Amino acid sequence: MDSPVESEPAGLTRLRLDIAYDGTGFQGWAKQPGLRTVQGELENALATVFSRFGRGPILTVAGRTDAGVHALDQVAHVDLSDEQFASLVSSHQGKGRKPDSSPEARAARLGRRLNGIAGLSSDLYVSRTALAPPGFDARFSATWRRYRYRIADKRAPRNPLLRNQTLWYPAELDVDAMNVTARGLLGLHDFAAYCKPREGATTIRTLQHFGWERDETGVLVAELQADAFCHSMVRALTGACVAVGEGKLKAGRAVDLLRARERTAEFKVLPAKGLALIEVGYPDDAEVGLRAEQTRARRDAATLEEARRASAAPA
Amino acid sequence: MDSPVESEPAGLTRLRLDIAYDGTGFQGWAKQPGLRTVQGELENALATVFSRFGRGPILTVAGRTDAGVHALDQVAHVDLSDEQFASLVSSHQGKGRKPDSSPEARAARLGRRLNGIAGLSSDLYVSRTALAPPGFDARFSATWRRYRYRIADKRAPRNPLLRNQTLWYPAELDVDAMNVTARGLLGLHDFAAYCKPREGATTIRTLQHFGWERDETGVLVAELQADAFCHSMVRALTGACVAVGEGKLKAGRAVDLLRARERTAEFKVLPAKGLALIEVGYPDDAEVGLRAEQTRARRDAATLEEARRASAAPA
Repeated sequence: MDSPVESEPAGLTRLRLDIAYDGTGFQGWAKQPGLRTVQGELENALATVFSRFGRGPILTVAGRTDAGVHALDQVAHVDLSDEQFASLVSSHQGKGRKPDSSPEARAARLGRRLNGIAGLSSDLYVSRTALAPPGFDARFSATWRRYRYRIADKRAPRNPLLRNQTLWYPAELDVDAMNVTARGLLGLHDFAAYCKPREGATTIRTLQHFGWERDETGVLVAELQADAFCHSMVRALTGACVAVGEGKLKAGRAVDLLRARERTAEFKVLPAKGLALIEVGYPDDAEVGLRAEQTRARRDAATLEEARRASAAPA
Repeated sequence: MDSPVESEPAGLTRLRLDIAYDGTGFQGWAKQPGLRTVQGELENALATVFSRFGRGPILTVAGRTDAGVHALDQVAHVDLSDEQFASLVSSHQGKGRKPDSSPEARAARLGRRLNGIAGLSSDLYVSRTALAPPGFDARFSATWRRYRYRIADKRAPRNPLLRNQTLWYPAELDVDAMNVTARGLLGLHDFAAYCKPREGATTIRTLQHFGWERDETGVLVAELQADAFCHSMVRALTGACVAVGEGKLKAGRAVDLLRARERTAEFKVLPAKGLALIEVGYPDDAEVGLRAEQTRARRDAATLEEARRASAAPA
């Protein structure tokens, strides 16, 4: 697939960034004036790296995380002008070795530059920067997102070294009952009962994987995978499981709520600290462009459908 | 073994405390005026719990950790007077259940009280408080201590969520060479070359276990076990391995240094952040009293021997 696609303007080189962060010290991913956010810190660092070229480049991300949510492997892309990309030359002189000026080496160098910027402290780390395959879009090429939620219930040890990424829960939870609930929620549904509504955004999602187990220390760990998650969906789904695990909600009721398609007070949305985005899935390099086009087309159709429904609804 | 032992004065109840902490925010275990230390925080909390009874009780610990060193399962003991111990009654009223006033329940209650004290934040957690077996001494009954050191070298991912407990090392390390070194250091030796000297303290120790492996993420993890460690010994032993793993020191030289019995600049003592005390070993309950007596006797003999040697030395 060498055909040009909408998302990759000519004269620009698109790089893929893999990023890890402890969300504790950030007001989420999305840039907000006056607040410390992951996007804000990274774009400031990009602006510093490319300060000679005027306004710094902008990031597009796979999964916008909320305040306090962590990421082990978040994915973003950035488009660099030829001049910006060409500026990523080695600063190492001499030593007998000729600096590697291949596009791959230039791309890799950006990560080291970003991690070297003073503004990036050790709670945010760029694990990898590489040339993106043709047509790649960090957001629209993604086929799935995978999140993890960690809970130390009354039975599990409380480890202060992992306190930023674990919810300490004061009751004992029944992991079997939680798994019955999780299995009941799998599949293609309208997750409106488990989403914080956003104007014009669909709440129809496919939950591909959802399971709980105790790790070797006894901590309850859930992994959830879906094509995409709507706002606060992971924390609502895990919250319903916790209510079931504590005996405060029937597993069947958690599933019936899907049909109600309305938010409820029968369970609590869990705090951000236990949540981490652990992986974003993409198709093979040859397919990423096609996937991005399909996602965009589907989104446009859904927006159209929403608009049609809204205008047909009684006032 | 119901015979009274020196370490457990009559009229006092000895409790064993299991404690976990993130060492980042502490100037080590030992109480120091004006500094935040683990012992200081815990003794303040004990003083609050037992404020009615005058001066609060004092802790005796298995492994005094340095500033920045973590602990997953540190062990300490505390002696409570009959009045202090009797005060550990349930504050839960009614609910139809009679509060459990057994000694075991009272002992367990102390941990909950300590964790409830505002001064203890989530970087310090008392995992368990229980009646100590007869003759138990957190320090002198211990038969071994086990530590862990974590290094993310150039090959391993840098995880911001684990940054407080992992040394980020800028070169790639050869784990096989490090294990050759570790094996060479095993056994009973005078570890003077690997200890920060302390007046009158022996540096003869038995290193029972020392091995490196990459965990499932690629991070290098060492575990070390010895009857006891002298000051900065774990960070020196691991530092020597790192020098070997980076090709800056020969494995054989690291072992030869044992014979030199002197500190050297050929390797660096590693920073505290990668280090955690993970477990303290004790014999069966029936043996803890005997073990404490033996350790005390050995220590007294060693002190005597040191004194003899010092007075026989030429001026």
